[in-house]
Amino acid sequence: MISVVLLGAGNVASHLYKAFQNAKDVDVKQWYNRNIKAIDSYKNDVDITDDLSSLVEADIYILAVSDDAIEDLSKQLPFENRLVVHTSGSTSLYAVDMKQKRGVFYPLQTFSKDAEVDFTEVPLCVEALKKEDLPLLKSLAKAIGCKSHKVNSDQRQGLHLAAVFVNNFTNQLYRIAHEITEANGAEFDILKPLIKETANKIETLSPYMAQTGPAKRNDKKTIRRHIKQLESDHHKAIYDLLTKSIQKTHGRR
Amino acid sequence: MISVVLLGAGNVASHLYKAFQNAKDVDVKQWYNRNIKAIDSYKNDVDITDDLSSLVEADIYILAVSDDAIEDLSKQLPFENRLVVHTSGSTSLYAVDMKQKRGVFYPLQTFSKDAEVDFTEVPLCVEALKKEDLPLLKSLAKAIGCKSHKVNSDQRQGLHLAAVFVNNFTNQLYRIAHEITEANGAEFDILKPLIKETANKIETLSPYMAQTGPAKRNDKKTIRRHIKQLESDHHKAIYDLLTKSIQKTHGRR
Repeated sequence: MISVVLLGAGNVASHLYKAFQNAKDVDVKQWYNRNIKAIDSYKNDVDITDDLSSLVEADIYILAVSDDAIEDLSKQLPFENRLVVHTSGSTSLYAVDMKQKRGVFYPLQTFSKDAEVDFTEVPLCVEALKKEDLPLLKSLAKAIGCKSHKVNSDQRQGLHLAAVFVNNFTNQLYRIAHEITEANGAEFDILKPLIKETANKIETLSPYMAQTGPAKRNDKKTIRRHIKQLESDHHKAIYDLLTKSIQKTHGRR
Repeated sequence: MISVVLLGAGNVASHLYKAFQNAKDVDVKQWYNRNIKAIDSYKNDVDITDDLSSLVEADIYILAVSDDAIEDLSKQLPFENRLVVHTSGSTSLYAVDMKQKRGVFYPLQTFSKDAEVDFTEVPLCVEALKKEDLPLLKSLAKAIGCKSHKVNSDQRQGLHLAAVFVNNFTNQLYRIAHEITEANGAEFDILKPLIKETANKIETLSPYMAQTGPAKRNDKKTIRRHIKQLESDHHKAIYDLLTKSIQKTHGRR
């Protein structure tokens, strides 16, 4: 049984809490938040607190708070030499105060408040300053059904940056496609099978091998017509830059 | 039973051929290609030809050839007043010669030579100059398990353009993420569950509602660090433009 104290009440904290509660080998001993109202509805299921001085002992303390709050919060912990991890993709391991055993427990997924998370589909990137703390982090990941990956800070920050491209930027391309279909009186929903297939294809092909379309073929006629067809200068700029990017990758320029 | 003559031997033609062969209500009467070698391996299963003057009679003639070849090929057909459709997303219905009954049968999916296509996941956009030709095109779509959508040329061309964003451009973002993870010694594979979830999320949320991340939050500190972290000016430019795009959509600028 791994005992855990959870700190924070955002999306990651809430989803981790549920995953821990569903795991038979994890015991959430306490849930801390600065503003106790945010976790008040859980008070019958778990010991909740807004008082750092009353934190109980546990195997792992998980700081699931905003990047900027990690350093401060970890400094205020009223104990030392315990395993304290943050859950941020982009924050240094060293943001955790040096009087603790420091680590990172970074779930590389997109969490929405209302959408359920299937933790078997969440890669957990784990990192520990001291090698001997790693197995416990891996066990915690395993207990909630995650595949864990030992990464160093460079790798984690590279993954976090790459995640912005495959998640936020990709989603913005979906948004632009939505705007284009609406402008043409077409249904965005018709694109959804293509969106899924584009994501599924890279299970078996590298993105390099999976590429198709006018930019890859250097089909100038279609490219010109597409740019003409776009009404927004902003969309034209994105079309132009990503077309050039594909051509650069595939040796067309 | 719907009888079909297929013309062309590219990806779309080959996948359609397989789908037609598997459908109990479709009879491929003939397969034409200018260069007969490309379809020679099918000669025991279907009547193949490279001679337009020997085309047999059928309910539908499908021109699954490159956009530029549609007009020419349709002009050369040695009959008139039969239902002739092309499969292009971006080509006008009027590219089909006016002496025929004209239509479009556009499968909105990404076809790779080697990847199997699940036609139940292929939206078929159908269009016909004469309304009375539409039911047959819809029946053909249904016979191979596709959901069909009646669209006009503007809608179809809007969908084709939007498809470039959600397929080619999205795939290029995956490629860039691949480059970033490699530059940091991390595994691209760790991103695959996130890629899938990003695509799945819009089944229930609009892309607008699904957006998260530093650009949406206007988290300038993370944005600055990410741009600094990127080694390629080209990647920086894409990061910058798509960040601005998200901020524009979400009222951050």
